[in-house]
Amino acid sequence: MDKKKNISMAVIKRLPKYHRYLSELLKNDVDRISSKELSRKIGFTASQIRQDLNCFGDFGQQGYGYNVKDLYSQISNILGIDREYSMVLLGAGNIGQAIANYTYFEKLGFKLKAIFDINPKLVGIKIRDIEIKDIDTLEGYLKNNAIDIGVLCVPSRSAQRVCDILIKNDVKSIWNFAPVDLIVPEGIHTENVHLSDSLLTLSYLMSHEE
Amino acid sequence: MDKKKNISMAVIKRLPKYHRYLSELLKNDVDRISSKELSRKIGFTASQIRQDLNCFGDFGQQGYGYNVKDLYSQISNILGIDREYSMVLLGAGNIGQAIANYTYFEKLGFKLKAIFDINPKLVGIKIRDIEIKDIDTLEGYLKNNAIDIGVLCVPSRSAQRVCDILIKNDVKSIWNFAPVDLIVPEGIHTENVHLSDSLLTLSYLMSHEE
Repeated sequence: MDKKKNISMAVIKRLPKYHRYLSELLKNDVDRISSKELSRKIGFTASQIRQDLNCFGDFGQQGYGYNVKDLYSQISNILGIDREYSMVLLGAGNIGQAIANYTYFEKLGFKLKAIFDINPKLVGIKIRDIEIKDIDTLEGYLKNNAIDIGVLCVPSRSAQRVCDILIKNDVKSIWNFAPVDLIVPEGIHTENVHLSDSLLTLSYLMSHEE
Repeated sequence: MDKKKNISMAVIKRLPKYHRYLSELLKNDVDRISSKELSRKIGFTASQIRQDLNCFGDFGQQGYGYNVKDLYSQISNILGIDREYSMVLLGAGNIGQAIANYTYFEKLGFKLKAIFDINPKLVGIKIRDIEIKDIDTLEGYLKNNAIDIGVLCVPSRSAQRVCDILIKNDVKSIWNFAPVDLIVPEGIHTENVHLSDSLLTLSYLMSHEE
């Protein structure tokens, strides 16, 4: 079923939304759904949905629609959450603590293995049974533990430096909450959550009302 | 300078990034910058930058480049942060508390006026001098206080209900952290921060490496 070449970021960015809606449908015991009905729920056109899913294989059947359970499981596979990922979290400030405490990621298969901070007052404290370690021990930790994702919640000024340590020690993906754009070598994935950018989009929309 | 019609969301979404970079340049006492140099820093092509900024007016001068302070101030105006916005925060759980504690938004002009939660154990507790109020008092509060933005950090199952109360009481913008897509009438702005969608984008990229 793998056509995976040349999939645009726009399509990739829509996949988690399909996953979320299908998970809702499953919870509500919906067995199958037409692309028209799925379109009504999810807010993409039926033709968009067909195009998106066609990037990955042949889903759905003329006159039957989609089998919800099958499609959910296929999209989970496509999203790569048929396996576990290990994460370390850097920076146990406000956002860092919130992320560490958010157990939903764990359910999706993203396991938080360790937390690091520079603040001696935080080192030693536990968040969900995970002790906050001194960030000076990060490199040593990474040499002994295979980690997939670094969750970067440190202040802007430290973000690139900590990111470099992660990459040097074989962390291949960075989930970045610091309000900076990281410079990373090819083959490293970054995904930014720039909260203030998002808030500024709202102020733009409010200030340009008719 | 206001050409503001038909600006695409893609352009709008890039504006906060310009704002962020110009703010950095200002901090580093950079007076002017060529579109080429700005392009190198920000990662958009020089022609993209010229196109984006041309949507709003004539910035920059042939052979001189951009005056950093002027451009920063113009983009601040365009983003609508030449005024203050009032916010209420709904749901003082992990993410809600992190947002409430994040003072950077305050510096941009987004003032947190009140926090609401349903949990009696949280009601009465203060975050940065703002007391958490019972969510049952939200409607009464909104009738007596003009609020621009509702920051929605409640669980998914309550998100639409709380959103409806906000809209009914003249809140025009919703900054939504709940992992659901809200249904809102025309004229209401929503901006979603779907953390798990962002994480799933990473797992997709990791699982589709060559």
